[in-house]
Amino acid sequence: MHPLFWIAPAGSILSLLFAFYLSRTTKRFDEGTDVMRQIAQAIREGARAYLKRQYRVVTIIFAVVFVILLVLALSNMLPIFVPFIFVSGGFFSALSGFIGMTQATNSSARTTNAARTSLNSALRVAFGAGGVMGFVVVGLSLLDLSFWFFILNWVYRALSMNERLLVVTQTIVCYGMGASFQALFARVGGGIFTKAADVGADLVGKVEADIPEDDPRNPATIADNVGDNVGDVAGMGADLYESYVGSIVATMALAYAAGLGMMGVLLPLILAAIGVFSSIIGTFLVQTREEASQRVLLFAIRKGIWSASICMAILSALAIRFIFPSHFNFYWPILVGLACGVFIGFSTEFFTSDTYTPTRGIAAAAKTGPATVVLEGLSVGMKATIPPVVVVALAIIAGYYLPGGVTRPAYGLFGVAIAAVGMLSTLCITLATDAYGPVADNAGGNAEMSHLPKEVRTRTDALDAIGNTTAATGKGFAIGSAALTVLALIAAYRSQILILAEKIDLRITNPFVIIGLFIGAMMPYAFCSQTIKAVGRAAGLIVFEVRRQFKEIEGLLEEKAKPDYAQAVDICTVAAQKEMIIPSLMAIIVPILIGILLGPNGVIGLLVGAMISGFVVALMMANTGGAWDNAKKYIEKGELGGKGSPEHKAAVVGDTVGDPFKDTAGPSLNILIKLMSTVSIVFAGFILRFTLFK
Amino acid sequence: MHPLFWIAPAGSILSLLFAFYLSRTTKRFDEGTDVMRQIAQAIREGARAYLKRQYRVVTIIFAVVFVILLVLALSNMLPIFVPFIFVSGGFFSALSGFIGMTQATNSSARTTNAARTSLNSALRVAFGAGGVMGFVVVGLSLLDLSFWFFILNWVYRALSMNERLLVVTQTIVCYGMGASFQALFARVGGGIFTKAADVGADLVGKVEADIPEDDPRNPATIADNVGDNVGDVAGMGADLYESYVGSIVATMALAYAAGLGMMGVLLPLILAAIGVFSSIIGTFLVQTREEASQRVLLFAIRKGIWSASICMAILSALAIRFIFPSHFNFYWPILVGLACGVFIGFSTEFFTSDTYTPTRGIAAAAKTGPATVVLEGLSVGMKATIPPVVVVALAIIAGYYLPGGVTRPAYGLFGVAIAAVGMLSTLCITLATDAYGPVADNAGGNAEMSHLPKEVRTRTDALDAIGNTTAATGKGFAIGSAALTVLALIAAYRSQILILAEKIDLRITNPFVIIGLFIGAMMPYAFCSQTIKAVGRAAGLIVFEVRRQFKEIEGLLEEKAKPDYAQAVDICTVAAQKEMIIPSLMAIIVPILIGILLGPNGVIGLLVGAMISGFVVALMMANTGGAWDNAKKYIEKGELGGKGSPEHKAAVVGDTVGDPFKDTAGPSLNILIKLMSTVSIVFAGFILRFTLFK
Repeated sequence: MHPLFWIAPAGSILSLLFAFYLSRTTKRFDEGTDVMRQIAQAIREGARAYLKRQYRVVTIIFAVVFVILLVLALSNMLPIFVPFIFVSGGFFSALSGFIGMTQATNSSARTTNAARTSLNSALRVAFGAGGVMGFVVVGLSLLDLSFWFFILNWVYRALSMNERLLVVTQTIVCYGMGASFQALFARVGGGIFTKAADVGADLVGKVEADIPEDDPRNPATIADNVGDNVGDVAGMGADLYESYVGSIVATMALAYAAGLGMMGVLLPLILAAIGVFSSIIGTFLVQTREEASQRVLLFAIRKGIWSASICMAILSALAIRFIFPSHFNFYWPILVGLACGVFIGFSTEFFTSDTYTPTRGIAAAAKTGPATVVLEGLSVGMKATIPPVVVVALAIIAGYYLPGGVTRPAYGLFGVAIAAVGMLSTLCITLATDAYGPVADNAGGNAEMSHLPKEVRTRTDALDAIGNTTAATGKGFAIGSAALTVLALIAAYRSQILILAEKIDLRITNPFVIIGLFIGAMMPYAFCSQTIKAVGRAAGLIVFEVRRQFKEIEGLLEEKAKPDYAQAVDICTVAAQKEMIIPSLMAIIVPILIGILLGPNGVIGLLVGAMISGFVVALMMANTGGAWDNAKKYIEKGELGGKGSPEHKAAVVGDTVGDPFKDTAGPSLNILIKLMSTVSIVFAGFILRFTLFK
Repeated sequence: MHPLFWIAPAGSILSLLFAFYLSRTTKRFDEGTDVMRQIAQAIREGARAYLKRQYRVVTIIFAVVFVILLVLALSNMLPIFVPFIFVSGGFFSALSGFIGMTQATNSSARTTNAARTSLNSALRVAFGAGGVMGFVVVGLSLLDLSFWFFILNWVYRALSMNERLLVVTQTIVCYGMGASFQALFARVGGGIFTKAADVGADLVGKVEADIPEDDPRNPATIADNVGDNVGDVAGMGADLYESYVGSIVATMALAYAAGLGMMGVLLPLILAAIGVFSSIIGTFLVQTREEASQRVLLFAIRKGIWSASICMAILSALAIRFIFPSHFNFYWPILVGLACGVFIGFSTEFFTSDTYTPTRGIAAAAKTGPATVVLEGLSVGMKATIPPVVVVALAIIAGYYLPGGVTRPAYGLFGVAIAAVGMLSTLCITLATDAYGPVADNAGGNAEMSHLPKEVRTRTDALDAIGNTTAATGKGFAIGSAALTVLALIAAYRSQILILAEKIDLRITNPFVIIGLFIGAMMPYAFCSQTIKAVGRAAGLIVFEVRRQFKEIEGLLEEKAKPDYAQAVDICTVAAQKEMIIPSLMAIIVPILIGILLGPNGVIGLLVGAMISGFVVALMMANTGGAWDNAKKYIEKGELGGKGSPEHKAAVVGDTVGDPFKDTAGPSLNILIKLMSTVSIVFAGFILRFTLFK
């Protein structure tokens, strides 16, 4: 094995050790009063129970797919290690979600308790919890990828270097399918859970019974807090796990296709390790002074991300100079990727933060009622697709041209892929800023439920508000990198088909390509239709349950009796399990079906159509949802009539519509398009054998 | 000139004569009481005033584009007749919108008066008015196309047949750009007008002042009725004018590219003439018996469309047998197109009519408030994109394969184009069913404002309800045919570029194609963001004006004083003029800009991206909007609490959100994608000369 390879496992272990250090630091803080502990315990148990049930369902589905893959592998339609690497990807994705969520549920009461003394220590606890998630996701994925890379190279050591890299990259690219499949279940299931609980709790609690958010009398309030953890922590962790490994394995495959040899294949792994180091430096810089304004708090977090990015830019330049002395051009796409991520973050902030005109415009539209809030929000979200599309277009051009794509197209495609790696290289810290949001949110819930003094809630609210902005930024990262990664995966699929010695006619005038494009463009709509409806259905169940408890449990509203929190958690859990299966299976079945009916040309059309359509729909949903949420919060701050005014009620409608947009349907789309791509790659041999039109 | 050519002008004159006959028949009916006449007169004047102002603005823009085209033609970058044919397309499109609207405004009071005696005579009057529009649109377009075809053939008579057909088809395809440009202004301007008035009138009238729809005390009520005419009649007429000529001229261009000679080029014109004849037969079959149920009424209209379709299927088989004895295969795409249109109609009806579960589900969601109505509606609209996409995919495959696209791709593309001609061949009667809706709607308004007995309003309401379904069906036709037409236009653009002796690399792996696709997929969102916002802004102006009149005009609410209707009409007119310009110019500027920046490959990517994304967004918007409207009507019938209940209020929110979806943003998208395509064709020479990347 090449000595440089060892940088990757070293980086992964560094990442895991740092996660362990952060976790220990958090543990030193106290969980506070008995009430606070009890609440934290209830949430912890609910979240564990949910994940256990989810993993049981997913295990069965994974077992079925494993058997199918094994049959294909034994029939020589797949490299033999693919079924195992598929399971491995799914397992480690689930494991990192589980660890991250455990840490988050362990930290919310500690954050609340820290907020009783100072804002800075609360920030450190919450951010530390997010950091555990970030470094575990990166550490586990790098460790597992390194493990497989080592094993496969050892197993195939008898082959020539070129043959060996072919089979290694062809096998390892299937790692992405396991990770994506698991991520889709986690995102969709968690997303349905969290929004069903949230919407259900709000519809009865705020609107009918007129009690505030997170009120302990509301039977769905624990479920709501559990949802933050299973959806926004475990779900998001699995999501970014698959984004991260997806970009790495796609780049490895394209490095082989570009004839860059072992060094090219190793490059994304090495860049990932450098990213870990840069993120650790950034993490130490996240702190704030007492009673800081929103702007100062946001800057405290930004400081960390920017330092990590600058560090990454410098170190990766040195790395490329050392690894590819004659191809320093490969450095530019990395820089472009980093810049692209930062810019998409800015754009998201502009459209979703209440310091700018778009979100304030939505709040102002509340003067003429809920319909205009919805229309204005959709208009803002649609406009918000423009800057990221332009930026990604520029990144594609730059990624393609700067490494010399004009003379060698394979270098160009590799450049686009490595731009995605660059964008995600500082994932440890960006994910930390993202995962810290739900911890702060839960901390606020805990403060409310344990009737702590008002200043505690004010501090956690300050953290939570920043969490909304960083969450929107994180979604921008996930979808921006997804566009580049899918492009790389499509290129990988194409070279796979070419290796299998088939002709392809990818011209847009080929009717199969066109039909694939149409169906692909429709896929995100069919998918979102399912997930949005699922949230509505599950929320309806919660509404009836909460109403039932209000009616049947005597003295509940007077706080003389306790609601049955567990029942609400249970309903969400069962509903989410049931509802997540069909949309997730769509992502597997449709590409195979299209492959059989329309052949590889149709499949590529499908993937491209889903990529471009999914990209804009996801951007629209993330931005619209974030903007509605913050428009509501803007009114709650006392603008335009404040809480309880008709304007506020209108804004709540917008926020409720936005919930499944931004937390269920929207963020699942980037997984959907990647899963469709990896499924096509894994089943390429099968599709070619059984297709009606080649 | 080939003798078969004369079928086209003969068909056009037949169409115009039949329109004249229908118009005379309507004129024989009486306009009713003095009050009824006055109301009709006010609406007539408002609509005229609007169209005059709109045509003034559009004339200036057309003049500017004319000069630009003239410069290009004089620099040899365009055939010399293009600027003139461009203006001609715009003029006749505007003329048919004007005639149709005049007829509609002349017929609403007559329909009301006829409804005082019987349902059948009211149906005959309203349907006759719609028929005038249908036959005028088809008659004028066929007449003008025949005129130019004759003139161009005469001017270039010295050229060889092949050279002559090249320059004739290249010139005549630019007719589509004039028609589309005018249509976009009419659809966007009219759509903004009608929805600003509608939303504004509802927001203050129904919600704040608690007076019913169409109440004469509401200052925006005349503007609302004017809007139905300028948006749903004049706007839609211009829209389908451009759909119709777009499909014909694209097919003519592809007939040349496929080497089918004069007969191939004439085929679409001849099919259009056969369609006129078939539609006349269908029109005579539209009648109903007294006090018919919704189902019977709908069947009365369906009978007409189906008979016309069957007639068309038989006659066109004979025509093909006679014109292309050796190529009877060209008949199948026509049949596929006809069937495809009928199927999309069914699908639309399923998702938007309250006799089926989707719309009833939206109504049921009103039990948990406006947010769930909006979510459920979006979910239904998203799902409604599936059947049309599948049908259009099948139509593309069938249109491509049945005429022998495998061995001769050019035949395949011609087949796809002629499927669109088949779908639109019975336009006279489908447009009649579509344009009759606003007449019935206005008739209802007139009945309300002139305080006629309740049974009159019941009769006009029955007609109006069917109008909602036929309007949704009409939109399905427009967008379904647009997908096929744009495909044909893209193929025409490609052959244009190939003729100009340039290489094209249309593989989806070309980064310029990819970037074009991304930007294209974003275009419908950028466009809808603008138009939705415009409606909101204009509606806001109306809200303030209505509030002002309620406050300042003493005795208005007690019906002792009359509101200033003209002022509200004026505000809508000015706002619509202002707001329609930017979105319309986007359609012209973006393809040229992309052409200069990314070259022809980028342009084709742009057009394909906009086509697939625009198709699904338009379907989603049309279906969602229609379903929301009918869910509200379903509740108004007395279900789920009926009028005035919280459920009804929640459903009204959905309906208001849906208004700009279904009548402004959505239906403009099919024009947008066609205009972008024709602009690319017209400016192809210019783009090739100045592009940075060839």
